[in-house]
Order: sequence, then C-alpha cells, then structure tokens
Amino acid sequence: MTSSTRPARIGIGMIGYAFMGAAHSQAWRTAHRVFDVPLEPDMVALCGRDRDKTEAAAGKLGWRVAESQWRRVIDRDDVDVIDICTPGDTHAEIAIAALEAGKHVLCEKPLANSVEEAVAMTEAADRAQAAGVRSMVAFNYRRVPALALARKLVADGRLGTIRHVRAQYLQDWILDPEFPLVWRLDREKAGSGALGDIGAHIIDLAQFLTGSRITGVSGLTETFITERPLVGSASGERGTVTVDDAALFHARFDSGAIGSFEATRLAGGRKNSMRIELNGSLGSLAFDFESMNELSFHDHTDDPATAGFRRILVTEPTHPYLSAWWPPGHALGYEHSFTHEVYDFLTAIAGGHDPEPSFADGLQVQRVLAAVETSAAANSVWTAIGEPR
Amino acid sequence: MTSSTRPARIGIGMIGYAFMGAAHSQAWRTAHRVFDVPLEPDMVALCGRDRDKTEAAAGKLGWRVAESQWRRVIDRDDVDVIDICTPGDTHAEIAIAALEAGKHVLCEKPLANSVEEAVAMTEAADRAQAAGVRSMVAFNYRRVPALALARKLVADGRLGTIRHVRAQYLQDWILDPEFPLVWRLDREKAGSGALGDIGAHIIDLAQFLTGSRITGVSGLTETFITERPLVGSASGERGTVTVDDAALFHARFDSGAIGSFEATRLAGGRKNSMRIELNGSLGSLAFDFESMNELSFHDHTDDPATAGFRRILVTEPTHPYLSAWWPPGHALGYEHSFTHEVYDFLTAIAGGHDPEPSFADGLQVQRVLAAVETSAAANSVWTAIGEPR
Amino acid sequence: MTSSTRPARIGIGMIGYAFMGAAHSQAWRTAHRVFDVPLEPDMVALCGRDRDKTEAAAGKLGWRVAESQWRRVIDRDDVDVIDICTPGDTHAEIAIAALEAGKHVLCEKPLANSVEEAVAMTEAADRAQAAGVRSMVAFNYRRVPALALARKLVADGRLGTIRHVRAQYLQDWILDPEFPLVWRLDREKAGSGALGDIGAHIIDLAQFLTGSRITGVSGLTETFITERPLVGSASGERGTVTVDDAALFHARFDSGAIGSFEATRLAGGRKNSMRIELNGSLGSLAFDFESMNELSFHDHTDDPATAGFRRILVTEPTHPYLSAWWPPGHALGYEHSFTHEVYDFLTAIAGGHDPEPSFADGLQVQRVLAAVETSAAANSVWTAIGEPR
Amino acid sequence: MTSSTRPARIGIGMIGYAFMGAAHSQAWRTAHRVFDVPLEPDMVALCGRDRDKTEAAAGKLGWRVAESQWRRVIDRDDVDVIDICTPGDTHAEIAIAALEAGKHVLCEKPLANSVEEAVAMTEAADRAQAAGVRSMVAFNYRRVPALALARKLVADGRLGTIRHVRAQYLQDWILDPEFPLVWRLDREKAGSGALGDIGAHIIDLAQFLTGSRITGVSGLTETFITERPLVGSASGERGTVTVDDAALFHARFDSGAIGSFEATRLAGGRKNSMRIELNGSLGSLAFDFESMNELSFHDHTDDPATAGFRRILVTEPTHPYLSAWWPPGHALGYEHSFTHEVYDFLTAIAGGHDPEPSFADGLQVQRVLAAVETSAAANSVWTAIGEPR
Repeated sequence: MTSSTRPARIGIGMIGYAFMGAAHSQAWRTAHRVFDVPLEPDMVALCGRDRDKTEAAAGKLGWRVAESQWRRVIDRDDVDVIDICTPGDTHAEIAIAALEAGKHVLCEKPLANSVEEAVAMTEAADRAQAAGVRSMVAFNYRRVPALALARKLVADGRLGTIRHVRAQYLQDWILDPEFPLVWRLDREKAGSGALGDIGAHIIDLAQFLTGSRITGVSGLTETFITERPLVGSASGERGTVTVDDAALFHARFDSGAIGSFEATRLAGGRKNSMRIELNGSLGSLAFDFESMNELSFHDHTDDPATAGFRRILVTEPTHPYLSAWWPPGHALGYEHSFTHEVYDFLTAIAGGHDPEPSFADGLQVQRVLAAVETSAAANSVWTAIGEPR
Repeated sequence: MTSSTRPARIGIGMIGYAFMGAAHSQAWRTAHRVFDVPLEPDMVALCGRDRDKTEAAAGKLGWRVAESQWRRVIDRDDVDVIDICTPGDTHAEIAIAALEAGKHVLCEKPLANSVEEAVAMTEAADRAQAAGVRSMVAFNYRRVPALALARKLVADGRLGTIRHVRAQYLQDWILDPEFPLVWRLDREKAGSGALGDIGAHIIDLAQFLTGSRITGVSGLTETFITERPLVGSASGERGTVTVDDAALFHARFDSGAIGSFEATRLAGGRKNSMRIELNGSLGSLAFDFESMNELSFHDHTDDPATAGFRRILVTEPTHPYLSAWWPPGHALGYEHSFTHEVYDFLTAIAGGHDPEPSFADGLQVQRVLAAVETSAAANSVWTAIGEPR
Repeated sequence: MTSSTRPARIGIGMIGYAFMGAAHSQAWRTAHRVFDVPLEPDMVALCGRDRDKTEAAAGKLGWRVAESQWRRVIDRDDVDVIDICTPGDTHAEIAIAALEAGKHVLCEKPLANSVEEAVAMTEAADRAQAAGVRSMVAFNYRRVPALALARKLVADGRLGTIRHVRAQYLQDWILDPEFPLVWRLDREKAGSGALGDIGAHIIDLAQFLTGSRITGVSGLTETFITERPLVGSASGERGTVTVDDAALFHARFDSGAIGSFEATRLAGGRKNSMRIELNGSLGSLAFDFESMNELSFHDHTDDPATAGFRRILVTEPTHPYLSAWWPPGHALGYEHSFTHEVYDFLTAIAGGHDPEPSFADGLQVQRVLAAVETSAAANSVWTAIGEPR
Repeated sequence: MTSSTRPARIGIGMIGYAFMGAAHSQAWRTAHRVFDVPLEPDMVALCGRDRDKTEAAAGKLGWRVAESQWRRVIDRDDVDVIDICTPGDTHAEIAIAALEAGKHVLCEKPLANSVEEAVAMTEAADRAQAAGVRSMVAFNYRRVPALALARKLVADGRLGTIRHVRAQYLQDWILDPEFPLVWRLDREKAGSGALGDIGAHIIDLAQFLTGSRITGVSGLTETFITERPLVGSASGERGTVTVDDAALFHARFDSGAIGSFEATRLAGGRKNSMRIELNGSLGSLAFDFESMNELSFHDHTDDPATAGFRRILVTEPTHPYLSAWWPPGHALGYEHSFTHEVYDFLTAIAGGHDPEPSFADGLQVQRVLAAVETSAAANSVWTAIGEPR
C-alpha cells in the first residue's frame, strides 16, 4: 500500500484506562486493520490520575503518551478525539470542555449521572455540531451484529407493529455479600446502581430496536444487600450501599408498544445475560448476549407447519459488519462491538455527518432512568417522560 | 387381581366437556391405570348444556351417562366428586351447591371471576371440610414433574433466600385480528383476559414455588385489538373485546423477594411459553413449559470453573410422579399434569387430608388478580393485598 | 352418541406386560378416546408366564382376562389382534402362529433375533395378507409427530437430494458396572445389545425418513463391561455379557446418501437421546428425542440474512396426529407414539390396507443389523445388503 | 511502563496473507496488548506472491515490509519466527528451510499434504530443537478456552475412563454446485478435502482432549459434486473435483475408547459446527464451535435428582486464558484462539521449552488422515496406524 492511499491520521486521547479503557483501546488498535476506514487512529495519549499506573497502561495498551490531567489531553494539538471512559460523575465536565475545544467526543454510557448534566452535555454537543464537531455516546451493544441485524429487520417492517418489548439485563457479580463497596455501588460516583449501569443499555436498545421513544414508566427498585465491606478496609469495616441492586419497570412507547424491563446484579448464574425480545404483528425477535452471535427470529407469515423461531447465526458476510471479518460460523466476541463503534465513529467524522447514538439519545435514556427512580420513590405511580426538546 | 385387593370405587361427575373436559377425562381414565390409587374413579356422568353434543362427548370420553342439568349430577347418589370444567362465571354456584351436597369438588382455575365469589366458595369449602368433604382448585402446573421438583429444591433450601421471580406466560392464539370474539374475550364469562386465564397460573406457581405470598402489586394492562368478529356472525359483525390482551405487573412477596410478571396472548411465535425463573442466594431455577420435561438449575455453591445451569431432564424415577411412568429420557406431556392432579386428589380424599391447592389458595390468586386490575386502573400505583383470613 | 354410530369392536390380546406392555396398554385404552377410530379396541386378554403377576397386571392395565399360555389367547374367538410385547426370541413363533390363525399382528421391534426368523415371519405375513390379515412391526418412533412431520417434509421435496444421515441413539442405563445381567444383555434372549435394541430404531427411522434403503455397511461393536452381576444372585456371582454395549456403523443408501450411525447404552448423561440429522441439497432436519416435540429445519432457499435452523414446535393442529390433541404448545409425551400406532393400525385393518412399517420393513432392518455384526467381525470390511425379495 | 520493563522484541515474518494470514496478524498485533508476554512481536515482513496485493495487505494488517520471496524473509536477520499460512503443498519446503536457518516456526495445519512430508518436517524440527529452535503446528482450536477447559477436566480425571468420542466438523460453504473449483478442492494443493482441512482439527482435538492416540481406523469418503466451474473461467468451463466432499471414519484409541468422526462441507445450515462429545465412566463433555464460549459437562457423580448437562459459560477468570480478557459473560470470538496460540508460542520460546502441538503431533494427525484414505480405498477395512517413532 503506497502512502498516497493511506488514510489520513486522526489523533485520539483517551481518559480512563480500566475495563472500558482496555476495551476501547482494543478497538482503536483494530478498526483500521479490519475495516476500510477513512481516518487512521493515532493513539496519542492516555490519561489517568495515577501516573505510574497510567504509564504502565499506556505502554501495555498501545498509547504513545501518558497524562495525568485530562485538560492537558484536550489541549494537545495532535489530539482530535476525546474518548471518555471514566465514571459517570466526570463525564459532563470533560465532555463539555472537549467539545468547546473543538474535539470530537466519544463518551461512555450512561451519558451522565443526572438529567441536568445530560442536558448541558447535549446543548454543548449541539453547539459544537454547528462547527462540525461530532459527539457520540457509547452504547456499544447497538454494534453487536445480531442487534444491528435486529434493528434492520424491524426497520424493514419484518415485525409489523410491535406490541411487546421484554428486556432483562441480568448479572450476578455482587451476589456475594462480601463483595466490596466499589465505586459502582456509590451513588455519588455512579449515579445509580444496576439501573444506570446496565438498565441504561436495555433502555437504549429498546428505543433503538423499535425506533420509538419511551413516554412513561412505572418503576420499582430494591437494594437487597444494604451494607458491604469498604474497599481495602483491613478491619472489615462496612459502608452503606447507596444504589439499587435491582430495578424493574414497565414502559409505554410512543408507537403503542408496552415493555417490561429488569436490571439486576443479583441473578445468580446469569453472568451477562442481556436479553431482549420483541413481539410484533408480523414477526418476533429474541436475543441473549450470552449467545451474542445468534438472533432468534419468528416470521408469523411462514406456513404454520414449518414456522418456528430461527436461530440465525449472525456471521454471514451479508450481516452487519461481518464482511470485514471471518467466514460464516466463526464467532465474534464482546470487544468487536467497540471496534464497530470506532469504525462508525471515524466514518461519521470523515463523512461530515452525525454518528448515532447522539448525546440527545443519551439524554433521552437519562430521562427514562430519572423517571424510573421518581416512580419507584412514589409507590410506582406512572411517571411521564416529557417530549425531547 | 382379586376383587379384595381392588381399590374401592368413587363416582365422578364432570361439568363441562370442552378442552378442559377432555383433559380431565384423560386423567380420570388413566390415574388408576398408572398409579396405585386408593380409590378407583367411576366415570359416572358428564354434564353439558347441549344434549346431543354432551351425549357424543360422554361416549367418546368414556362417561356412562350424559346430563344437561348440573344439579342432577350433584343429586346422584353414585356421584361422589364434582369436577368443574366450565367457564369461570359458573364456578361459584356449582361448587357451593356441590360442597353443600357433600360432594368433593375439583374446580378449574381461576377459582372464580371475582374476589367475592372466591370468598363465598372458600367459606363453603371450609364448612364442608368440617364434614370431611375435600376441595381443590385445578392449578395443574403444580403437578408438572419439573415444577414439582422445583418446589422441592426450594423447600430443601437449595436456592437460599429468593430475591427474584421472573414469570411470563406467552401465547399467540389471538394474534390474528380476525380471530373471533370467543367467551374467553368476554369479561362477563371470563372475568378477565390473559390476566385471569394464564396470569393466574404464574401467580399460583410463583407463590407455590417460593412458598411465600404476594403482598402488593403494580399493574398495567392493555388491549391491542379492541374489536373482533362475533362468533358465527355471517355478516362479519364485530363486537368489543372487554378483557385485556396482555397484563404486566410487579410484585413483592412476604419473603422479601420481588417479581416481574407478564401474561399475553399476542406474543407471536410463543405457543404456550410459561416461563418462570427464580434467583436465590444459593441457587437459581428456570423453566419453560415449551420444554416441559426440563428444569434448569444453577447451584451457586458449585466450583465456578464447572458451574453452569444444569439441564435436568426430569424423567428419573426419583423425580416427582416419575416412578409410575417410563424409563429415564421418555418424556411426559401436558395431559400428565392432570393425571397427577387426579392421583393426588384421590389420595387426599382416601387419606382424609386436604389436597392442595386449596380454595383458599385460589382465593389468594383471585386477590392478586383483582389488585392488578385495581392498580392498572389507577396509574399503576402500588396496591396492597390484604392478609388472608 | 347413539349406539348406531358407535364403532364396531375389535378384540385385542396382548402377550407380555412389562415396559412395552404398559405402553401398549395405555395406547389401547386411549386411541378411540382421542381419535375417530373405525374399530373400538376391546382389551380382552393379557398373557404372561407368571399367573399372579399377569392377573395383577391385567387388572391394573385394564385387560379383562389374564392368560398364561399365549396359544390360548390366539385361540380365543373374541380376540382379533395379537400384540406381541415379549423379548425377541419369542416373536417368530408367536407371530407366525397368530397369522396362521387369521389374527392381525402388531409385533414389537426388532422383528426377530435373526434374519432367518424375520424371513419366516415376513413370509407368514405375506401369506396372511392374501386373506386380509394385517401385520405391523412396532417401530413406534415413526409416529412421533415431529418425525412424521420430518418424513412429510422429505417426501414433499423440501430437503432436495439427501446427502448425509447422522443418527445416534444414546442411553446410559448400564453405565454402572454393578447393573445386573438382565435379559437385554443376553444374546440368547435379545439377539444383540444396543445394536438391536436401539440401533434398530435409528435404522428404521433413517430408511423411513429418507425413503431409501441401506445397501451396505461397515461396522464396529464393543463391549466395555464384559462381566456383570447375575440377576438376583445374593452371592455377587457374575456372568458374561454376550451382547454389544455399543455399535457404530457407516452406511450407504440406494439414493446415494451416506450415513453415520451409533447406538450405545454407555453415553453417561444421555438418557434417551435418539438424534437424527439429515442434510439435503435444499434443506436440513435435526431431531433429538430428548426434545421430542421439536423439529429443527433449515431451508437453504431462505434469504441467507434470515436463514437459520427453525425450532418448529410440533404441536400445531396441522401437524401429524395433533388435531386430535391439545392446543399449540401443549406437549405430547413418549406414550403418544403408541397411541398413534394403534390408531393407524386400527385404521388400516378397518380400511383393508396394509399398515406400515410392514414385516418386510422389519426384515430389512434385520438384514442391516446382521450386516453390521458381520462387518464388525471381519475388520469392519464393507458388507453389502442384498436386494429385498 | 519504563523501557527497562518492556519485553524484548522478537521479529516475525509471515508467509501468506489470506484468511489465515489475517487471523494470525490479528493475533500478532494483540497478544502482547492483553497478555503479559516475555517477548514483544515485531511484525517485520509479510510475504506473498503478488507484490501489489502483498504490499496492500502488509499495510492493512500491520506488517512493516512486503516480500514476494519467502526465502528472503527467512534470510532476514531481524526475523526470528516464520509463521506459515500458505496452502499445504508448500509447508514442508518453507518449514524445513526456516528451521535449518534457525528460525522458530509456527505452521498452519494440516502439517503437510503427506506423511512423507510430515516426517521430514518432524525430523527437521527435532534437529532444530537441539539448537533451541521451537516449532509448533497451528491447531488453534486447542486454545479455545472451552476446549482448553475440557482438556483440563479430562486431565483432572473428571471423566474417568473415556469410552466414546463423537466428533463432527460440519460446514456448508460448497453446497452450491456452482461454487468454483478453488485450491481447497484440488488434491495437488490441498492434499485432501474436508478430511485434511477440517477433519484434521477434530483428529487433533480428539487426541488432545483424551490424551490418547488413535491406533486404527475404518474410513469412507465421498465426493457428491464431482465437477465445478473453474475459478475465473468466463466460459463456464468445469473441472474435476479431486478431493473428498465428506469423510467419515471410526477409530480406536490406545486408551480403549472408540470414536466416530465426520467431516463435511455439504451439511447445509451448519456453518462451522465443530462438535465433539466425550463419554466417560465419571463424566461427559460436549462442545459445539457454533457456541464457542460454552462447554457442556455432565458429572455422573451428581445426585441423579439434580444431575444434568451443565452449560458452563467459559468466561470466568479462572478459566484458561480468561483472566487477561473481559468480565464473566463477555464472550470471546474465533480470532482469540490465535491470540492465545501466539501467547503460548512466545512464552515457550522465551521459556526455552517446546510448545504444543509439536510437529510430531502434526505428523500423528497426518498418519491418521492417510490411514483414513487407505481404508476408504480398501472397502473400509480396518487400517492400523503404526507407533510413532
């Protein structure tokens, strides 16, 4: 490949290097090796608060420079994109600063810890957009090929009118009462518990897949284990869990569909079971992330004698993102959703169009999260979600 | 086999001969052929309103006599048991009359169409019980071996403290808008729609399996297709559907568990998918009636390296009811739950103890059904369910 | 139903009352209660060697008379059908005597313990057929609705040209080396081991489903546990297992397909896993008896974007035998295959046509079984199976 | 991370850049980013026959230099490892030259196109090994975590004595008769068809998982579609397929186990279904690559009341390779097996021990492949496989 055909470079700065930082780094390293991207990521700077750990992470994950001040990453001329992988309480400040500095922003979900922050971020994104600056919230599951295919089937009308949405996000990593009080169990840092962490994913997905908006909810939250050991406490001291262990809610969509949602981290044996099922007048879909390369599809127009849920192995070259990967039947994994996200983000930046999901999409999710908590605090009474701006 | 070892006879009269009548008849014909029952059913009389159809059904299903007046069946000296398989609006009158006449009563579910009727029936059952007359409500799914095993595992403590109940009863038989306005879509006859017909099953099961009582609910109901062709109308005349197509509710149990319930007849592709999942501190269980001979069990105390949901094929001789049937791996079907029900009922009558589920259990289900409708009519606000008597 | 419309009676005599006897009895009691049969079975006589046990079984299973001499059952004027449920070494003598006495014969599988016996039985059936006497070998799995549907899909051309047959019958009931030396482990009584007992089923099914004949095989057999405790031996005495624990063979069909077959009773954890998969030029089918109400079907002509194995729940009224049973999604069990068998047998007798599978079909299976043993004894060399008469 | 702790570099040269080349490149780019490797791969040179395509591929896949002569890659001082991703007919020449030049060799499977070549390669590997030069054959499926866990369970004795191996590798990519005559359908290039391409995988896996050696086979091969369009022929000219479409064989292992193997590319609907099942005296295992993150395990010592095949989601940190990746329930994909392979290979090189599978392991697979073809050509007669050197 001669240099003339080499895509232009784009400089990336990433804030945060834990679980999400590792997943995003894999994506930044890989997207242009697999897809035909218009911009080749240059992994300039990784930022974390602990200098030694950040340097080690930068070397390991493939970033050229380690920084400990996120503002210095934003200030760098060789950085064009800020990728925010920090806890939710820092998203607004970093994202708004980056956008105001003219940097494209990819921000982890949930967009923020409150509707107010999300509104401010969305307004900043709108202002930046006028100057050609792009922003995107990282609901990566939209880029799982089976779910991208699901969206396509719905958009193509294969489900007809959707009546039912049934979404569950089940994990079990805090089942042990001795699991410590990490930041995700602290309302100050995380905003909420299972609701915002994993419930946000199924809210976004349900709206994405159906192409419709949640207009009201009735919620219920519960914290089963109210005290846990403090992180690193040698004396076994305990602190109070300030977020939900589980959140359930019912929803109505502007399309007329009704939905049942559940997010919990105490579903023993379910490791990362994000299940979503849609029932329409013409077809039904079912998905479980524990079998992430499969989509179940029932076509109600099939002859009843041979109708049945089809286990579509979403590894065909005609399936979303798959033509760039391996032959049929050769599975992709969790991390590929991030590679696809980066690919789509780069394509949008280069193409001068806005990527999805937008900060406005993230704000809508935030509004649903807030309404669930409002309803749960008010005897589950129905709580409307206002029209977006 | 000499007559001395032959079990004593017990005379059965059945009211109704449609779907449930056929299923119960198969049970009355079969129980003593497979199980060692203390009383051998004598299928005396079948009762239906249409004389010709009832006579045909009696001949077909194995009943000696056809009757068109249910009171005449109750009056027969050779009838000891009244089996009620009619629509819900007739349950109370028949059951109370039978109990007052000293006949044991097996009554289809839901027990009644209202809490008031169910209370009257339960009071009648209590009075009759003093005279050694037994009554039972026919929540047959308790007798599916996989669910009986599930109850045993919970009772044995294998799940520890149960936190989550996740129950869905999904069917699709009224998906077609041209499906007619049958009695099950008429509030007068059926009491409610999916809620009472199939939701009642998962309410009873959830309480049975967990061994705890639902204390409050938040509900939502929906009728997607509000008008349907009248039955037998040549002119294509339509009438109004007066029951729910779908009902969703959240519940709290007196044990501290929380639950999510859904009943619908518009889940295209789901034929009879009664799914229930329980997550406890020590174990989890999952069941789907579409694979009725299987129970999924996760033992959280297993070594994580080899832990996983076990697909228990519930066909071992040590499993409930199975020692009377076929070798391991040879499946039972839907109808067997009725045969087991009859076996347990006959055993209770002969043994002089009360069978389960009792009319009081049926009344508790009725209270939950009523509370769901109350909540749904009041913006889903949390609705408490009073203590049983 | 008036007596004039009542079907004519047909007298049944059954030889043997163990596992198969119980299953057949359930069928004889049930077929006319569910299906519209032209002949109503009269369960006249049950025959067994032990008088007391036979009398008890007759009373329990619903037979009017207990006999200890099978010839006396054949001799009865009120017996029209002989149902043979005894071990394989007695089939030929009983069946031939019954046919010569003008009785219709339903004979358990495998038809006999040797090709010679099977030839004699088939010749007797041919002679009897000229006089309107019917015979049938009880490969009941042909009547599992999912497999009857599979046959229909193949016959309708939905699979195109079939290339692959993949059949396994896996059980584990003799996994324990202390399991005793029952008659099924004795070559004198059983003819062979897993090969004849369960291998016979998949041979018949493979030929039935594909509509083609096996023309040659290469076989391998193995007995892993060569000595077992004698039945009822208090002193722990052991005897030699004289049959195979497992039999594997490859086959070619006259259609050009190739097949892989395996039968074993030592596949720990597999209780009754009779699996068969067909791959054709236009479609594929897969079945596992452990999920007996399901058929997997892949239509290669589907759009690749939504193609996938369909899990057909074979409980629709349009599926074979189902219109007589329960609503969609309400499963049937193992025993229903026998009820369907009896229904088809009675229909054939009344209709004056030959039921399937015929004794000739049973003989063809016997020839395959013999060829597998011949090949296994000769270094697995390819062994042809001659043309049928 | 300071440069002092940075692992030493190791130069890699890769021959071939098609499907396998892309997969290996992803592994070379990723291993040191995820695992703690003792040597950091420097992706020096990519070699292909077509200069332009090779240059494009090198740029895309991350190689510094493009070469068109493989000997020039071997000759480079900055190349320490030769990774062979070419068709089988070139393996021996390249591998032997590389080993003789003192380069470590990773060679795609099957090791060669004939036993003779494989012997020569193994001898070269043995000679090189004396000089500390390592060689490895790329049976990547050994590094799928679920299969590595399976091996561990067997090695830990959890299966007891293994009796049955049941292995199938089912694909369908040449189902269409118009699919062209690519090199994999040409005996000169590919050695054999499904047998060597995918059958080799299940042979290696069966021996790896059981820890025992195949001592004899009885085989059958078939070519269903004997003529196909020539690649790039505008006139629709057809050529003869010179390899098998499908290969079936039975095997005996030196442990006493028996096995059934099938490899085909005409199993419509099966995209990459590599299934393997083991039945032992204490446990059973089942795996299907179409659900590559799962392992089914049946522990026969479990209480029968709760025994069942466990669906182990092989994503726990205690599972092989998983501690380096994502949280439980977050799946890996096909390509990860190559990353694990590279990690193990680099670790072996740095640690001075021989990696597995060795060229000798590859030779043993080659012997089995040859014996299958010998048997298939001789009426399936049993064909022994000699002791390894």
